[in-house]
Amino acid sequence: MRAGPSQEEIRRHNLGALLRHVHLGGPISRAELTNRLGLNRSTIMALTADLTAAGLVREELPRETGRAGRPSLVVRPESARVYVFAFDVGVDRLVAARVGLGGTILDRRDAVRRRDPFSTEEVVGQLAAFARQMHRKTRSDTVCVGAAAAFSGGVDRGGGVVRFGPNMGTVGDVPFAEEMTRRLGLGLRVAVGNDANLAALAEHTRGVGVGCRDLIYLHGDVGVGGGVIVNGQLLGGHMGFGGEVGHMIVNPDRGRPCSCGSSGCLEAEVGERALLEAAGRFGSQAGRDAVRAVVDAADRGDVVAQAALNRVGDWLGLGVANLVNLFNPEMVVFGGMLREIYLGSAAQVRSRLAVEALPPSREHLRLRTSALADEATLVGAAELAFSRVLADPLEVLARAGS
Amino acid sequence: MRAGPSQEEIRRHNLGALLRHVHLGGPISRAELTNRLGLNRSTIMALTADLTAAGLVREELPRETGRAGRPSLVVRPESARVYVFAFDVGVDRLVAARVGLGGTILDRRDAVRRRDPFSTEEVVGQLAAFARQMHRKTRSDTVCVGAAAAFSGGVDRGGGVVRFGPNMGTVGDVPFAEEMTRRLGLGLRVAVGNDANLAALAEHTRGVGVGCRDLIYLHGDVGVGGGVIVNGQLLGGHMGFGGEVGHMIVNPDRGRPCSCGSSGCLEAEVGERALLEAAGRFGSQAGRDAVRAVVDAADRGDVVAQAALNRVGDWLGLGVANLVNLFNPEMVVFGGMLREIYLGSAAQVRSRLAVEALPPSREHLRLRTSALADEATLVGAAELAFSRVLADPLEVLARAGS
Repeated sequence: MRAGPSQEEIRRHNLGALLRHVHLGGPISRAELTNRLGLNRSTIMALTADLTAAGLVREELPRETGRAGRPSLVVRPESARVYVFAFDVGVDRLVAARVGLGGTILDRRDAVRRRDPFSTEEVVGQLAAFARQMHRKTRSDTVCVGAAAAFSGGVDRGGGVVRFGPNMGTVGDVPFAEEMTRRLGLGLRVAVGNDANLAALAEHTRGVGVGCRDLIYLHGDVGVGGGVIVNGQLLGGHMGFGGEVGHMIVNPDRGRPCSCGSSGCLEAEVGERALLEAAGRFGSQAGRDAVRAVVDAADRGDVVAQAALNRVGDWLGLGVANLVNLFNPEMVVFGGMLREIYLGSAAQVRSRLAVEALPPSREHLRLRTSALADEATLVGAAELAFSRVLADPLEVLARAGS
Repeated sequence: MRAGPSQEEIRRHNLGALLRHVHLGGPISRAELTNRLGLNRSTIMALTADLTAAGLVREELPRETGRAGRPSLVVRPESARVYVFAFDVGVDRLVAARVGLGGTILDRRDAVRRRDPFSTEEVVGQLAAFARQMHRKTRSDTVCVGAAAAFSGGVDRGGGVVRFGPNMGTVGDVPFAEEMTRRLGLGLRVAVGNDANLAALAEHTRGVGVGCRDLIYLHGDVGVGGGVIVNGQLLGGHMGFGGEVGHMIVNPDRGRPCSCGSSGCLEAEVGERALLEAAGRFGSQAGRDAVRAVVDAADRGDVVAQAALNRVGDWLGLGVANLVNLFNPEMVVFGGMLREIYLGSAAQVRSRLAVEALPPSREHLRLRTSALADEATLVGAAELAFSRVLADPLEVLARAGS
């Protein structure tokens, strides 16, 4: 246990706390900040003055106060000036975005990705080209304070190396952070995180899970991933590979083969392929639209589609029950194609929970679908990119050379 | 996100940090404390002076320095003076102990518990009587700064209510913290925690897992429990029921019935009963000795015992593989009778891990047996009891009325 912080560390912490409030909550009056941060008015004034001088926030008179007396100034993030690059490397798409402080998407580029073996050269080249296009369009007074990518695979926390990505078709280790940093050429180190982990962070900070300190986000597409928020923090584990809910074995006896080389994993039982095969549609269709088509067919009374959805929902329910017993979360969030699957099989999921989750662990549990939908991973990548400037606003800005 | 701490909060934090060092690490020189806490000498001197005046530590000249110059004073915990009561409510035993600051067991009482339906009156009466006996023997200058109990069941974090304890034979909710507090009658609120959670804390602070920030402790007796340390903190979840690894379903198809009402739970497949039934010994024997007898018989070449141990080890390996994929721990610790089972079936556990745990999550993994053995729960209860005085040394001591 380290000793308490120095005065300078406290000032840095407070600057970060104030900036985080404005970044996540949007424009807010000085009076309200005083309230929320538990600091006195003069401290808040000094902190906002520092952040204003650095060009991170600006202060304005509120439009209407409806009250007598001098109105409290409103502090706004400098969204058009301070931004990050966020990248989403998914199985079926590549996205690059320029995201302003406060979370505003200022500019973006999307590309469809074919399900081919992974080519670092191709993916990094495409994303860096997108970023350069967007960078050229920025005004000269703007400043980039970070960059991060969400990757559909297991990422080593320290080095940003992709250690496994079977659904992306990677082979061996991919030094993705290093390659992106080099090709981007902005003098900024690109951080890389697992897509479902970052989506969990996004739902926790800006989505359906705001205010929840214990949350599990389940993400489905070809693979099934997850992100776990424990006491307000993303569970990374020893090396950053924590939260791999897709490779929890739920069906050891007669399990389907999994992309990881094992069988009976949650991913193998509830992923896209499991649903499409059970519905007799594998091979002819793929992707989110194919999953939606099965759910729609089940809705219209197609018995094959209904049986497929029930089967998948049943395994999903078992997986969720296990997670509820292990983590006692306040909320479980279904995202990606698991959103559709959950909506089509909520009865199976709930009946599994009723039998297999411990009563005290499920009595306050809320099951929800993602609020950010397909943007969750991109939003999470942007939050990862902003994390450095929020931890130490002035230092990062000084280095970015505004 | 709250603002940074005030000067007074920092002082309190530093007092707690220093006391925690002395409590967990034992006697330490002022020079070394300066080093470890990253504070300057005069601050360390002021903090130790405060703690000395409060009677929590004392300063002494070291016996031998072997170096020239004035030796740095050694700070020691006042173990004989400052103590807590720790209780362990297990399936087969009840323990009460008086534990001094620094973790020294000053006095203890043990009783065998029969596997009867749970009687709050009987258990609380027995433990309170033990505590009173020990309290009467203390000198008048001693001070009790906390009390806590480990309970073999699911405990509501807020209220210390036992919400489920099938292996203890509880029925309905048991307001255990309230009853213990009342019967102890020392004006101290008794904290209550799940036994495996507290054992995990004990192994993390004083056992095989010192220095590990991500650790899973698995505890077996009649039931199977667990405690998970995530980034240095015990995982409690929303209401404190997190870490129920025993009720992760590993065998959904042909699972054995579990005490929780479900079937195929890890507890049902690897608990005491599973092993004894597979070995054809259930009914005639029970408890740790019976488990040891099976492991010993397997060791001597008894094929029935070997098959039983292999079967249980196989399910244990599957459970551990799932936990490794979910948590990416640095260490998994086997405690209680799972210690014997793991030692007798390490090959099964490792071969499951080799196939079913993701390679990057298992490459740095260490599998270990408990260092504190049957004392882990009691040590964990003592640490829970000390947690308040370590968080705010002077306030707690003032209230204890030294």
